[in-house]
Amino acid sequence: MGLKSFVEVPADSHFPLENLPYGVFKPEPHSPPRPAVAVGNHVLDLSVIASAGLFDGPILKNSDCFNQPNLNKFLELGRPAWKEARATLQKLLSATKPTLRDSASLRSKALVPMDKAQMLLPIVIGDYSDFFSSMHHAKNCGTIFRGPENAINPNWFQLPIAYHGRASSIVISGTDIIRPRGQAHPTGNSPPYFGPSRRLDFELEMAAVVGPGNELGKPIDVNDAADHIFGLVLMNDWSARDIQAWEYVPLGPFLGKSFGTTVSPWIVTLDALEPFSCDAPIQNPPPLPYLAEKTSKNYDISLEVLIKPAGQEDSFVITRSNFKHLYWTITQQLAHHTINGCNLRSGDILGTGTISGPEPESFGCLLELTWNGQNPVSLGATTRRFLEDGDEVVFTGFCKGDGYNVGFGTCSGKILPAST
Amino acid sequence: MGLKSFVEVPADSHFPLENLPYGVFKPEPHSPPRPAVAVGNHVLDLSVIASAGLFDGPILKNSDCFNQPNLNKFLELGRPAWKEARATLQKLLSATKPTLRDSASLRSKALVPMDKAQMLLPIVIGDYSDFFSSMHHAKNCGTIFRGPENAINPNWFQLPIAYHGRASSIVISGTDIIRPRGQAHPTGNSPPYFGPSRRLDFELEMAAVVGPGNELGKPIDVNDAADHIFGLVLMNDWSARDIQAWEYVPLGPFLGKSFGTTVSPWIVTLDALEPFSCDAPIQNPPPLPYLAEKTSKNYDISLEVLIKPAGQEDSFVITRSNFKHLYWTITQQLAHHTINGCNLRSGDILGTGTISGPEPESFGCLLELTWNGQNPVSLGATTRRFLEDGDEVVFTGFCKGDGYNVGFGTCSGKILPAST
Ligand SMILES: [Ca+2]
Ligand SMILES: [Ca+2]
Ligand SMILES: [Mg+2]
Ligand SMILES: [Mg+2]
Ligand code: NI
Repeated sequence: MGLKSFVEVPADSHFPLENLPYGVFKPEPHSPPRPAVAVGNHVLDLSVIASAGLFDGPILKNSDCFNQPNLNKFLELGRPAWKEARATLQKLLSATKPTLRDSASLRSKALVPMDKAQMLLPIVIGDYSDFFSSMHHAKNCGTIFRGPENAINPNWFQLPIAYHGRASSIVISGTDIIRPRGQAHPTGNSPPYFGPSRRLDFELEMAAVVGPGNELGKPIDVNDAADHIFGLVLMNDWSARDIQAWEYVPLGPFLGKSFGTTVSPWIVTLDALEPFSCDAPIQNPPPLPYLAEKTSKNYDISLEVLIKPAGQEDSFVITRSNFKHLYWTITQQLAHHTINGCNLRSGDILGTGTISGPEPESFGCLLELTWNGQNPVSLGATTRRFLEDGDEVVFTGFCKGDGYNVGFGTCSGKILPAST
Repeated sequence: MGLKSFVEVPADSHFPLENLPYGVFKPEPHSPPRPAVAVGNHVLDLSVIASAGLFDGPILKNSDCFNQPNLNKFLELGRPAWKEARATLQKLLSATKPTLRDSASLRSKALVPMDKAQMLLPIVIGDYSDFFSSMHHAKNCGTIFRGPENAINPNWFQLPIAYHGRASSIVISGTDIIRPRGQAHPTGNSPPYFGPSRRLDFELEMAAVVGPGNELGKPIDVNDAADHIFGLVLMNDWSARDIQAWEYVPLGPFLGKSFGTTVSPWIVTLDALEPFSCDAPIQNPPPLPYLAEKTSKNYDISLEVLIKPAGQEDSFVITRSNFKHLYWTITQQLAHHTINGCNLRSGDILGTGTISGPEPESFGCLLELTWNGQNPVSLGATTRRFLEDGDEVVFTGFCKGDGYNVGFGTCSGKILPAST
C-alpha cells in the first residue's frame, strides 16, 4: 500500500516516498539554486539536509555534492551514492523517524511548498543526443515521407539511430517557446520561402540522464550501461516540420529542432522505476553482439499529451502512449553511443525519440496524429493540424504502483508568436 | 615590413606582433591553466600581465577575464575588449616599449618558451556545429555517393547546411586518435559487420569561435554577425566513412564523427585576419534576404595537409587548399544558425565543413582525394586509400603578409589502433 511519510502525500500524487525524484530549485527569486527531492506537494532542500549533517552514510557524509547549483556532481558519484541517498531520504521522511518530523525549525528550512519553488534545469547538459527508437514512429514518418514500401531504412533494425541535438536551447518545463522562423519549400521547383514555421509540432519523448561518464576511447559495455544512467525525464523535442523537411538532407535535422527542447524538472531515478520494469520487445534480426544484453528492459510508464488551445480554459488529451513501446532500450542506446569511443559526461542526456505506440491514438506527435496535416485532430470545439500560437502542450507520465504512483509531474510549454 | 618586437620573431614564424593569437596553456604539469598569446617562439602569460596591472585600458583594467582557466569570459566581452587587448599587447611587446622589455623579472615570469608550454583546449565548448560550406566538397561527395546528376541537393544553394557535432570529444592538437569501432555495411543485402573502421579519414576544416552569444529567440542579423565571432582555428573533423555511410540516413552523421575532433591551440582573431580578407564567391541563386550581407567576406588563408606515415621519418603534403574557396561565409553560417532563435554561447564553435578547392590537388579529405578509395594517393614509397594506424595527420594554415605571416601553427593527431 505504499511507504508512509510524515509529509502529506495526496493519493494521486506523483511523488510518494517510493519516488523521490531529483531536481534543482530556488526558494526565492534571488536565492542560489540548490538540489532537492520532491515529496507530496513539497520539495525537500538537500543543501539544508546536507548542512544539518543528515547525510550520514559513508559516501555522502563528507561530500559537497548537495551544495551545488546543479546535480552533476551527485550524478558523477554513481549508483552506490544514489542508493545511499535514497535510503537516507526514505528513512528521514518516513512517518516513524523523528529527526526531521519533530524539528519545526529544520522542517521550516528544509521543506518548501512546491508552488513556492522555482524549478530550474537540474543539470548542466554538455551534450544532448536524440535517438529514434520507436518502431511505430519510424514506420509512420517513413510512410508519410517515402511511402509504405521503404518506410523503415534497413539500418534502423541494426542500430539505434540518433543525431546530435542542440544543448544550449534545452529549457525547463514552463518556459515559453517562440515559434521559429526559417526556410521551407512548398513542392516541385518553386523557390523556398522564409517566415514563421507553419508546421510546428511537439514530439513526445523521454530522456535518460547520464551518471558517471566514460573516458574518450573507452566504450561502455551494454551490460554495464544501466550503472551509467541516473534516471529519466519527460522531454518535448519541439519540431518545425517544414524547416526540417527542407534542410535535413543529407546531414539531418538542425534548425527544425534547435529552437527549443523542453524537459521536466524532476529526474526520476532508475531505482524508483525498477518495480515498473518490463521486458523490451524481442528484436529481430537479433542485434550484433555489442548490442545484445543479458536482460533487455523497458519500463511501463504511461504517457499522455494534453493541448490547451489558445484562448480556451480546457485541455484536451490528444494522445496516450507508453515508454514500453520502445524497440531499442536506453542501455542499448548508451552502449551504441560509446562503441566508437565517444565519451559521455555526467549530465549528458539521451532522448529516446518520439514514443509512438501501435495504435493511431498512441502516436507521439502531430505529424503522425494528423498524418502530415491531412486529418486534423479535434480539441473540443476546435481542431489542429499543427500547433497554433497560444497553444500550450502538456506532457505527463507516471507508473501505477499498488496504492501509489511513481510519476514525472508535467513537462509543458506554450507557443508564442514568431518574433518580427 | 612588419611590426618590431623585442621578443625574437623568426622570419617564417606564424606569430609576429600582427597576429597575437589566443590560447590557454600550463607552464608546468601541475600549474593551473591560464590564457596566453603567442609571439615568435614564446607564449606570453596573460595572467601575469593582468596581475602586473598592465592591461590598463578602460574595459580590461578591472576585469578578471585573464585569471581564468579558459578564454570564455574574455570572448564574452566582445570586440571592444578584444581591440583593447590587442592594442595593449602590441604596445607592450613592441621593440620600443621598456615596461616588459627591460624588466628581467617580469619577462621571466611572463614569457615562456613555446616548447615548454603545454597547450590546452582554450575554450569550454558548449555546442559544436559543423557546416558543409565548400561547393567543391559538396559536389565531390554527392558525385561519389549519388552520381553526377544529383550531386548537390537543391537545398544546398539556398542555405548553409549544417549538423550538430559532438562537443565532448573535441581535443587539442597533439592528442592521439583511437581508431573507432562500429557497424558498417558492405553492399547489397548482406548483414552489417562490426569492427575497427576500415575507412578512416581526416577532414580539412576551420572553425569560427563564437564571442558574445544571443538570447534564445533573438536571431543575430547577418550584418552584425562578425561582432559575434572572435576568431578562427584549424579543425580536423576525423571521419569514419564506413560507419558514416551506414548510419547517416535519415538523421545525419553520428558515430562516424563523434570519436574525436581536433582543434589547433591558437585562436587567430578576425582582427588579425582582416588584412587578408577577400570577396566571397558570388552566390547564384542570390540568398534570401536574411542571408544577404552588405559585404560578403572570405579570408585568404593557405591550408596544407601533411601525412607522416607510420614508421617513416618524412611527412608528405597531400593537399593544398584555401579558406577563400568557401561558398557560404562564416557570417552567413552564424546568422543562419540563429535565424530560428537558437542561442549561441561564447565558446561555441562553427566548423566550416571540409574545405575543398576546385582542383583535385586541393580536395580536403581522402574520400575525395582517393575518390572513395579507388585511386590511392602516394606518400613517398607508400600509398594510402584511407588512414592507417600510426599515421600522423598535420594541418597548417597561414596568411602571407608583406614581410610577415599570420598563421595558425599546426593541428595534428596520430591514429592509434582500435581498442580491443
Ligand atoms: Ca526527436
Ligand atoms: Ca565535417
Ligand atoms: Mg528540440
Ligand atoms: Mg569529428
Ligand atoms: Ni553540446
